[in-house]
Amino acid sequence: MSSTAERIRPGRSGILAAATRLFATHGVSGTSLQQIADATGITKAAVYHHFPTKEEVVVAVLAPALEAIQGIVRTAGAHEDPRAATEAAIIGLADQAVTHRQRWAVLLQDAAVEEYVRNNPDHDELFTRLRLLLTGPDPTPGTRLQVSLFLSGLLGPAQDPSCADIDDDALRAGIVRAGRRLLLADDDA
Amino acid sequence: MSSTAERIRPGRSGILAAATRLFATHGVSGTSLQQIADATGITKAAVYHHFPTKEEVVVAVLAPALEAIQGIVRTAGAHEDPRAATEAAIIGLADQAVTHRQRWAVLLQDAAVEEYVRNNPDHDELFTRLRLLLTGPDPTPGTRLQVSLFLSGLLGPAQDPSCADIDDDALRAGIVRAGRRLLLADDDA
Repeated sequence: MSSTAERIRPGRSGILAAATRLFATHGVSGTSLQQIADATGITKAAVYHHFPTKEEVVVAVLAPALEAIQGIVRTAGAHEDPRAATEAAIIGLADQAVTHRQRWAVLLQDAAVEEYVRNNPDHDELFTRLRLLLTGPDPTPGTRLQVSLFLSGLLGPAQDPSCADIDDDALRAGIVRAGRRLLLADDDA
Repeated sequence: MSSTAERIRPGRSGILAAATRLFATHGVSGTSLQQIADATGITKAAVYHHFPTKEEVVVAVLAPALEAIQGIVRTAGAHEDPRAATEAAIIGLADQAVTHRQRWAVLLQDAAVEEYVRNNPDHDELFTRLRLLLTGPDPTPGTRLQVSLFLSGLLGPAQDPSCADIDDDALRAGIVRAGRRLLLADDDA
Protein backbone atom coordinates (compact mmCIF):
# COMPACT_ATOMS: atom_id res chain seq x y z
CA MET A 1 0.00 0.00 0.00
CA SER A 2 2.98 2.31 -0.31
CA SER A 3 1.42 4.11 -3.28
CA THR A 4 -1.56 5.05 -1.11
CA ALA A 5 0.74 6.16 1.69
CA GLU A 6 2.67 8.39 -0.71
CA ARG A 7 -0.48 10.09 -1.88
CA ILE A 8 -1.28 11.14 1.71
CA ARG A 9 0.53 14.41 1.46
CA PRO A 10 -1.26 17.03 3.50
CA GLY A 11 -1.61 14.33 6.19
CA ARG A 12 -3.39 14.67 9.52
CA SER A 13 -2.68 18.36 10.06
CA GLY A 14 -3.90 19.31 6.58
CA ILE A 15 -7.07 17.29 7.02
CA LEU A 16 -7.72 18.82 10.44
CA ALA A 17 -7.16 22.38 9.18
CA ALA A 18 -9.64 21.84 6.34
CA ALA A 19 -12.11 20.06 8.62
CA THR A 20 -11.94 22.89 11.18
CA ARG A 21 -12.77 25.46 8.49
CA LEU A 22 -15.66 23.38 7.16
CA PHE A 23 -17.07 22.48 10.60
CA ALA A 24 -16.83 26.09 11.75
CA THR A 25 -18.80 27.28 8.74
CA HIS A 26 -21.30 24.50 8.02
CA GLY A 27 -21.42 22.55 11.28
CA VAL A 28 -20.31 18.95 11.69
CA SER A 29 -23.57 17.49 10.42
CA GLY A 30 -23.36 19.79 7.38
CA THR A 31 -19.90 18.52 6.45
CA SER A 32 -19.09 15.16 4.80
CA LEU A 33 -15.80 13.26 4.71
CA GLN A 34 -15.91 13.81 0.92
CA GLN A 35 -16.01 17.58 1.43
CA ILE A 36 -13.10 17.34 3.86
CA ALA A 37 -11.16 15.31 1.27
CA ASP A 38 -11.95 17.84 -1.48
CA ALA A 39 -10.94 20.81 0.70
CA THR A 40 -7.71 19.05 1.67
CA GLY A 41 -6.99 18.14 -1.94
CA ILE A 42 -6.78 14.39 -1.29
CA THR A 43 -9.01 11.39 -1.89
CA LYS A 44 -11.69 10.25 0.50
CA ALA A 45 -9.70 7.01 0.90
CA ALA A 46 -6.75 9.06 2.14
CA VAL A 47 -8.97 10.74 4.74
CA TYR A 48 -10.24 7.31 5.81
CA HIS A 49 -6.65 6.19 6.23
CA HIS A 50 -6.22 8.76 9.03
CA PHE A 51 -9.78 9.01 10.29
CA PRO A 52 -12.10 6.04 9.69
CA THR A 53 -15.11 8.07 10.91
CA LYS A 54 -16.17 11.72 11.01
CA GLU A 55 -16.43 11.44 14.79
CA GLU A 56 -12.69 10.80 14.94
CA VAL A 57 -12.09 14.00 12.94
CA VAL A 58 -14.27 15.92 15.39
CA VAL A 59 -12.39 14.51 18.38
CA ALA A 60 -9.05 15.45 16.81
CA VAL A 61 -10.24 18.98 15.93
CA LEU A 62 -11.40 19.56 19.50
CA ALA A 63 -8.41 17.98 21.26
CA PRO A 64 -6.20 21.11 21.18
CA ALA A 65 -9.11 23.22 22.46
CA LEU A 66 -9.59 20.91 25.42
CA GLU A 67 -5.84 20.81 26.07
CA ALA A 68 -5.87 24.61 26.10
CA ILE A 69 -8.60 24.57 28.77
CA GLN A 70 -6.49 22.12 30.79
CA GLY A 71 -3.58 24.59 30.53
CA ILE A 72 -5.78 27.49 31.67
CA VAL A 73 -7.11 25.49 34.62
CA ARG A 74 -3.56 24.54 35.61
CA THR A 75 -2.18 28.07 35.32
CA ALA A 76 -5.13 29.81 36.97
CA GLY A 77 -5.36 27.11 39.65
CA ALA A 78 -1.76 27.85 40.70
CA HIS A 79 -2.85 31.24 42.12
CA GLU A 80 -3.59 31.22 45.84
CA ASP A 81 -5.75 34.34 45.72
CA PRO A 82 -9.18 33.38 44.27
CA ARG A 83 -9.58 36.74 42.51
CA ALA A 84 -6.17 36.36 40.85
CA ALA A 85 -7.21 32.85 39.77
CA THR A 86 -10.44 34.20 38.28
CA GLU A 87 -8.57 36.95 36.46
CA ALA A 88 -6.02 34.46 35.06
CA ALA A 89 -8.81 32.21 33.82
CA ILE A 90 -10.57 35.16 32.15
CA ILE A 91 -7.36 36.22 30.38
CA GLY A 92 -6.63 32.67 29.20
CA LEU A 93 -10.17 32.19 27.89
CA ALA A 94 -10.18 35.56 26.10
CA ASP A 95 -6.98 34.60 24.30
CA GLN A 96 -8.43 31.24 23.23
CA ALA A 97 -11.64 32.87 22.00
CA VAL A 98 -9.66 35.24 19.77
CA THR A 99 -6.50 33.38 18.74
CA HIS A 100 -8.24 30.07 18.02
CA ARG A 101 -11.66 31.43 17.10
CA GLN A 102 -12.18 28.98 14.22
CA ARG A 103 -11.48 25.93 16.36
CA TRP A 104 -13.89 27.18 19.00
CA ALA A 105 -16.52 28.03 16.38
CA VAL A 106 -16.81 24.28 15.78
CA LEU A 107 -18.28 23.94 19.26
CA LEU A 108 -20.88 26.60 18.53
CA GLN A 109 -22.11 25.14 15.28
CA ASP A 110 -23.53 21.84 16.33
CA ALA A 111 -25.74 20.49 19.07
CA ALA A 112 -24.09 17.09 18.65
CA VAL A 113 -20.60 18.47 19.25
CA GLU A 114 -21.59 20.23 22.43
CA GLU A 115 -23.29 17.06 23.58
CA TYR A 116 -20.14 15.07 22.89
CA VAL A 117 -18.06 17.47 24.98
CA ARG A 118 -20.62 17.66 27.75
CA ASN A 119 -21.17 13.92 28.02
CA ASN A 120 -17.51 13.00 28.37
CA PRO A 121 -16.79 12.63 32.11
CA ASP A 122 -13.22 13.99 31.71
CA HIS A 123 -14.50 17.12 30.00
CA ASP A 124 -17.25 17.50 32.53
CA GLU A 125 -14.72 17.48 35.38
CA LEU A 126 -12.49 19.92 33.49
CA PHE A 127 -15.32 22.42 32.97
CA THR A 128 -16.43 22.04 36.58
CA ARG A 129 -12.91 23.03 37.68
CA LEU A 130 -12.87 25.92 35.20
CA ARG A 131 -16.21 27.18 36.48
CA LEU A 132 -14.97 27.01 40.07
CA LEU A 133 -11.93 29.11 39.17
CA LEU A 134 -14.23 31.66 37.55
CA THR A 135 -16.76 31.78 40.39
CA GLY A 136 -14.34 31.45 43.28
CA PRO A 137 -15.11 29.12 46.19
CA ASP A 138 -18.69 28.77 47.50
CA PRO A 139 -20.34 30.82 44.75
CA THR A 140 -23.82 32.26 45.10
CA PRO A 141 -26.37 31.26 42.42
CA GLY A 142 -26.00 34.81 41.06
CA THR A 143 -22.27 34.35 40.58
CA ARG A 144 -22.76 30.99 38.88
CA LEU A 145 -25.19 32.67 36.51
CA GLN A 146 -22.68 35.41 35.63
CA VAL A 147 -20.07 32.71 34.89
CA SER A 148 -22.56 30.86 32.71
CA LEU A 149 -23.32 34.03 30.76
CA PHE A 150 -19.62 34.83 30.38
CA LEU A 151 -18.78 31.31 29.16
CA SER A 152 -21.68 31.35 26.68
CA GLY A 153 -20.83 34.84 25.51
CA LEU A 154 -17.06 34.90 25.32
CA LEU A 155 -16.88 33.17 21.96
CA GLY A 156 -19.32 35.68 20.46
CA PRO A 157 -17.29 38.82 19.71
CA ALA A 158 -14.54 37.12 17.67
CA GLN A 159 -17.22 35.33 15.60
CA ASP A 160 -19.56 38.30 15.22
CA PRO A 161 -19.61 40.11 11.85
CA SER A 162 -20.56 43.31 13.73
CA CYS A 163 -17.16 43.16 15.48
CA ALA A 164 -15.14 42.21 12.38
CA ASP A 165 -13.43 45.63 12.34
CA ILE A 166 -12.03 45.19 15.87
CA ASP A 167 -8.42 43.94 15.89
CA ASP A 168 -7.34 40.91 17.90
CA ASP A 169 -5.70 42.83 20.75
CA ALA A 170 -8.80 44.99 21.22
CA LEU A 171 -10.98 41.87 21.11
CA ARG A 172 -8.90 40.20 23.82
CA ALA A 173 -8.92 43.35 25.96
CA GLY A 174 -12.68 43.80 25.54
CA ILE A 175 -13.45 40.20 26.49
CA VAL A 176 -11.20 40.50 29.55
CA ARG A 177 -12.99 43.73 30.50
CA ALA A 178 -16.37 41.98 30.16
CA GLY A 179 -15.10 39.11 32.31
CA ARG A 180 -13.89 41.50 35.01
CA ARG A 181 -17.19 43.39 35.00
CA LEU A 182 -19.23 40.22 35.26
CA LEU A 183 -17.07 38.24 37.66
CA LEU A 184 -14.95 40.68 39.65
CA ALA A 185 -17.42 43.52 40.25
CA ASP A 186 -17.50 44.68 43.85
CA ASP A 187 -21.25 44.38 44.31
CA ASP A 188 -21.02 40.61 43.93
CA ALA A 189 -22.76 39.87 47.22
CA MET B 1 -59.88 14.90 1.52
CA SER B 2 -62.06 15.61 4.55
CA SER B 3 -60.92 12.39 6.23
CA THR B 4 -57.33 13.66 6.07
CA ALA B 5 -58.39 17.03 7.45
CA GLU B 6 -60.18 15.36 10.33
CA ARG B 7 -57.13 13.38 11.29
CA ILE B 8 -55.12 16.59 11.69
CA ARG B 9 -55.97 17.01 15.32
CA PRO B 10 -53.01 18.54 17.13
CA GLY B 11 -52.75 20.86 14.11
CA ARG B 12 -50.15 23.55 13.53
CA SER B 13 -49.61 24.47 17.18
CA GLY B 14 -49.11 20.86 18.24
CA ILE B 15 -46.64 20.25 15.42
CA LEU B 16 -44.73 23.43 16.29
CA ALA B 17 -44.55 22.58 19.99
CA ALA B 18 -43.15 19.13 19.20
CA ALA B 19 -40.77 20.52 16.58
CA THR B 20 -39.48 23.17 18.99
CA ARG B 21 -38.68 20.49 21.60
CA LEU B 22 -36.93 18.29 19.03
CA PHE B 23 -35.00 21.14 17.35
CA ALA B 24 -33.91 22.51 20.73
CA THR B 25 -32.52 19.13 21.74
CA HIS B 26 -31.18 17.61 18.54
CA GLY B 27 -30.78 20.58 16.22
CA VAL B 28 -32.73 21.09 13.00
CA SER B 29 -30.46 18.88 10.92
CA GLY B 30 -30.77 16.14 13.58
CA THR B 31 -34.59 16.17 13.37
CA SER B 32 -36.70 14.64 10.59
CA LEU B 33 -40.31 15.36 9.63
CA GLN B 34 -41.01 11.74 10.60
CA GLN B 35 -39.72 12.40 14.13
CA ILE B 36 -41.85 15.53 14.34
CA ALA B 37 -44.88 13.50 13.23
CA ASP B 38 -44.16 10.77 15.81
CA ALA B 39 -43.69 13.30 18.62
CA THR B 40 -46.92 15.06 17.64
CA GLY B 41 -48.78 11.75 17.44
CA ILE B 42 -49.86 12.23 13.83
CA THR B 43 -48.84 10.86 10.44
CA LYS B 44 -46.06 12.32 8.35
CA ALA B 45 -48.71 13.11 5.71
CA ALA B 46 -50.52 15.24 8.27
CA VAL B 47 -47.33 17.17 8.97
CA TYR B 48 -46.85 17.67 5.21
CA HIS B 49 -50.39 19.03 5.03
CA HIS B 50 -49.34 21.98 7.24
CA PHE B 51 -45.65 22.18 6.39
CA PRO B 52 -44.50 20.78 3.03
CA THR B 53 -40.81 21.20 4.04
CA LYS B 54 -38.78 21.19 7.24
CA GLU B 55 -37.66 24.73 6.40
CA GLU B 56 -41.25 25.90 6.74
CA VAL B 57 -41.41 24.34 10.21
CA VAL B 58 -38.22 26.18 11.18
CA VAL B 59 -39.59 29.49 9.92
CA ALA B 60 -42.83 28.98 11.87
CA VAL B 61 -40.95 28.01 15.06
CA LEU B 62 -38.80 31.13 14.86
CA ALA B 63 -41.57 33.56 13.88
CA PRO B 64 -42.75 34.28 17.46
CA ALA B 65 -39.13 34.80 18.56
CA LEU B 66 -38.59 37.39 15.85
CA GLU B 67 -41.91 39.06 16.65
CA ALA B 68 -40.80 39.29 20.27
CA ILE B 69 -37.60 41.06 19.20
CA GLN B 70 -39.72 43.47 17.14
CA GLY B 71 -41.77 44.16 20.28
CA ILE B 72 -38.63 44.78 22.36
CA VAL B 73 -37.20 47.13 19.73
CA ARG B 74 -40.50 49.02 19.58
CA THR B 75 -40.85 49.33 23.37
CA ALA B 76 -37.22 50.17 24.06
CA GLY B 77 -37.08 52.54 21.09
CA ALA B 78 -39.92 54.59 22.58
CA HIS B 79 -37.60 55.80 25.37
CA GLU B 80 -35.96 59.16 24.70
CA ASP B 81 -33.12 58.59 27.14
CA PRO B 82 -30.61 56.19 25.53
CA ARG B 83 -29.74 54.56 28.87
CA ALA B 84 -33.42 53.93 29.58
CA ALA B 85 -33.73 52.42 26.08
CA THR B 86 -30.73 50.13 26.75
CA GLU B 87 -32.17 49.07 30.09
CA ALA B 88 -35.59 48.31 28.55
CA ALA B 89 -33.95 46.23 25.82
CA ILE B 90 -31.92 44.28 28.42
CA ILE B 91 -35.04 43.54 30.48
CA GLY B 92 -37.01 42.45 27.41
CA LEU B 93 -34.22 40.16 26.21
CA ALA B 94 -33.72 38.62 29.65
CA ASP B 95 -37.41 37.76 29.78
CA GLN B 96 -37.31 36.14 26.33
CA ALA B 97 -34.19 34.14 27.24
CA VAL B 98 -35.92 32.69 30.30
CA THR B 99 -39.63 32.50 29.46
CA HIS B 100 -39.13 31.15 25.93
CA ARG B 101 -35.82 29.37 26.47
CA GLN B 102 -36.76 26.34 24.37
CA ARG B 103 -37.74 28.42 21.35
CA TRP B 104 -34.47 30.35 21.58
CA ALA B 105 -32.48 27.15 22.05
CA VAL B 106 -33.42 26.27 18.47
CA LEU B 107 -31.27 29.19 17.31
CA LEU B 108 -28.29 27.89 19.30
CA GLN B 109 -28.40 24.36 18.01
CA ASP B 110 -27.76 24.78 14.35
CA ALA B 111 -25.39 26.72 12.13
CA ALA B 112 -27.98 26.61 9.34
CA VAL B 113 -30.67 28.24 11.48
CA GLU B 114 -28.44 31.10 12.53
CA GLU B 115 -27.45 31.56 8.91
CA TYR B 116 -31.11 31.69 7.89
CA VAL B 117 -31.82 34.40 10.46
CA ARG B 118 -28.68 36.33 9.65
CA ASN B 119 -29.17 36.24 5.88
CA ASN B 120 -32.72 37.56 5.90
CA PRO B 121 -32.54 41.33 5.23
CA ASP B 122 -35.55 42.03 7.50
CA HIS B 123 -33.92 40.18 10.40
CA ASP B 124 -30.63 41.86 9.72
CA GLU B 125 -32.23 45.30 10.00
CA LEU B 126 -34.10 44.25 13.14
CA PHE B 127 -30.91 43.07 14.87
CA THR B 128 -29.07 46.20 13.77
CA ARG B 129 -31.75 48.30 15.48
CA LEU B 130 -31.62 46.08 18.58
CA ARG B 131 -27.83 46.43 18.76
CA LEU B 132 -28.10 50.21 18.47
CA LEU B 133 -30.57 50.31 21.37
CA LEU B 134 -28.14 48.24 23.44
CA THR B 135 -25.04 50.25 22.55
CA GLY B 136 -26.61 53.69 22.48
CA PRO B 137 -25.83 56.14 19.68
CA ASP B 138 -22.27 56.37 18.26
CA PRO B 139 -20.87 53.39 20.15
CA THR B 140 -17.16 52.79 20.62
CA PRO B 141 -15.79 49.48 19.33
CA GLY B 142 -15.47 48.45 22.99
CA THR B 143 -19.18 49.02 23.58
CA ARG B 144 -20.10 47.08 20.43
CA LEU B 145 -17.99 44.23 21.73
CA GLN B 146 -19.76 44.22 25.11
CA VAL B 147 -23.12 44.11 23.28
CA SER B 148 -21.90 41.23 21.15
CA LEU B 149 -20.80 39.30 24.23
CA PHE B 150 -24.10 40.03 26.00
CA LEU B 151 -26.19 38.91 22.99
CA SER B 152 -24.12 35.72 22.61
CA GLY B 153 -24.24 35.02 26.33
CA LEU B 154 -27.74 35.91 27.37
CA LEU B 155 -29.28 32.64 26.17
CA GLY B 156 -26.69 30.64 28.15
CA PRO B 157 -27.87 30.67 31.76
CA ALA B 158 -31.41 29.40 31.11
CA GLN B 159 -29.98 26.57 28.96
CA ASP B 160 -27.08 25.70 31.25
CA PRO B 161 -27.39 22.54 33.41
CA SER B 162 -25.13 24.23 35.99
CA CYS B 163 -27.87 26.86 36.50
CA ALA B 164 -30.79 24.41 36.48
CA ASP B 165 -31.43 25.03 40.21
CA ILE B 166 -31.94 28.79 39.70
CA ASP B 167 -35.61 29.76 39.43
CA ASP B 168 -36.95 31.84 36.56
CA ASP B 169 -37.20 35.12 38.46
CA ALA B 170 -33.61 34.82 39.67
CA LEU B 171 -32.49 33.92 36.13
CA ARG B 172 -34.18 37.03 34.72
CA ALA B 173 -32.75 39.24 37.46
CA GLY B 174 -29.25 37.81 36.99
CA ILE B 175 -29.30 38.32 33.22
CA VAL B 176 -30.51 41.90 33.70
CA ARG B 177 -27.69 42.45 36.22
CA ALA B 178 -25.16 41.09 33.71
CA GLY B 179 -26.56 43.36 31.01
CA ARG B 180 -26.33 46.41 33.29
CA ARG B 181 -22.76 45.57 34.26
CA LEU B 182 -21.70 45.08 30.66
CA LEU B 183 -23.64 47.89 29.01
CA LEU B 184 -24.42 50.51 31.65
CA ALA B 185 -21.19 50.53 33.66
CA ASP B 186 -19.87 54.01 34.30
CA ASP B 187 -16.36 53.37 32.98
CA ASP B 188 -17.73 52.83 29.49
CA ALA B 189 -15.40 55.37 27.86
